[in-house]
Amino acid sequence: MQRLSDMGLSLPPAPKPAANYIPCQKVGDVLYLSGHLPLQSDGTLFTGCMGDVSTFDKDLLDAITTDKDDLALTYGQKAARQVGLNLLASIQQAVGDLDQVEKVIKLFGVVQSTNDFHQQHLVLNGCSDLLVQVFGPDIGLHARSAIGTNALPLNIVVEIEAIVKVKDV
Amino acid sequence: MQRLSDMGLSLPPAPKPAANYIPCQKVGDVLYLSGHLPLQSDGTLFTGCMGDVSTFDKDLLDAITTDKDDLALTYGQKAARQVGLNLLASIQQAVGDLDQVEKVIKLFGVVQSTNDFHQQHLVLNGCSDLLVQVFGPDIGLHARSAIGTNALPLNIVVEIEAIVKVKDV
Amino acid sequence: MQRLSDMGLSLPPAPKPAANYIPCQKVGDVLYLSGHLPLQSDGTLFTGCMGDVSTFDKDLLDAITTDKDDLALTYGQKAARQVGLNLLASIQQAVGDLDQVEKVIKLFGVVQSTNDFHQQHLVLNGCSDLLVQVFGPDIGLHARSAIGTNALPLNIVVEIEAIVKVKDV
Repeated sequence: MQRLSDMGLSLPPAPKPAANYIPCQKVGDVLYLSGHLPLQSDGTLFTGCMGDVSTFDKDLLDAITTDKDDLALTYGQKAARQVGLNLLASIQQAVGDLDQVEKVIKLFGVVQSTNDFHQQHLVLNGCSDLLVQVFGPDIGLHARSAIGTNALPLNIVVEIEAIVKVKDV
Repeated sequence: MQRLSDMGLSLPPAPKPAANYIPCQKVGDVLYLSGHLPLQSDGTLFTGCMGDVSTFDKDLLDAITTDKDDLALTYGQKAARQVGLNLLASIQQAVGDLDQVEKVIKLFGVVQSTNDFHQQHLVLNGCSDLLVQVFGPDIGLHARSAIGTNALPLNIVVEIEAIVKVKDV
Repeated sequence: MQRLSDMGLSLPPAPKPAANYIPCQKVGDVLYLSGHLPLQSDGTLFTGCMGDVSTFDKDLLDAITTDKDDLALTYGQKAARQVGLNLLASIQQAVGDLDQVEKVIKLFGVVQSTNDFHQQHLVLNGCSDLLVQVFGPDIGLHARSAIGTNALPLNIVVEIEAIVKVKDV
């Protein structure tokens, strides 16, 4: 996809099937994407719990340079954006090229949170913003749910699944 | 929709798009509705955590008059019903009239809960009952999942998303 | 389904509609299955919270004989498998025979967890493995999300919903 290189974005390797499930199920012209992780190409994960910076991955937190006030929120948003890159990698693997995407239908995102953290929607924006940047609003704008939870697999800070419509091919 | 006025119901304003997502995604004859909030027309939200009445919005709690034993559960059910009214407002905005609804396919509801609260299904009935009252059982009966969580956006007590089939138009 | 009897499996009774929702919604050739419970034929439930064995159902825990190291994880996986059996029962009731299943599209599973339990994906394998055993990989492999939560209805240890494609009939 031309837009990806224009943005200077490169995708991580597409997640591989694990155990008895698959990262992306294609049914007709709809892709059902499994809950994806904030996994980086080097194998590291954005871990920790929003609301308690001391639980974050220290190296990933230290690497953030931002002029925004809220470093912790930036960490969560970068994690959500990283999930988005992994979702894109899975979509690309499923249909060959991101230009085949007709509509991002829906995201469901879950943020590992302390009891008193209530900005899961702002964390999820890290993924939503990426998708609209990549696809533009006509294709990229989606329905969305954002919730928190006390515990996610592998101690990740955010997990997101997606439903995507692709062109008939 | 005639039934709405027969019931004396008026809908709140439809939720507006926020950030880079939209309240309702129409794909063919299916509506994917984002996680909706227990938002009232005056802008107030049903906040708090089921299992701990001290966390509830005091004004909204005080306004409840019920002859049921369980005031706290009534608060949660009223919140879920309020989410339902917002879902209806979004559906109406998407397709013009609620008579266009062919089937409420599915709800997914998340209830902010203390660790020892285990009646999320009863809370969700506040929304399920509304939908069956409005549409009747043939159209209104739906599949449903009800879960709890420790933390929701904006400290709301319940968030519900929906999938709805509408008539071909 | 011949495969079920080959495996020596018998299904529990299909869950009955409760309140104003239904266990399985058929829309065209797609089944939307409600969040199902780890309910056994005798009415008992796998209850408790992964990460704290003291919260498990003692009788069900004592009944587990395994040579695996992790008795607690086995409990969770057996619970997830039991949810799978209930999902199969609902599918069978909806379409008459499990041979009518064309594709298990997706699972969404929620595991009641302590804050420091992060193996929800391993718990869910109890259900995923069952579905692939019953249907084989071509039909049974599915997309999946696994998350934790602090609180589920009726104190169950795991709840799973599913989307399934069936043959046109």
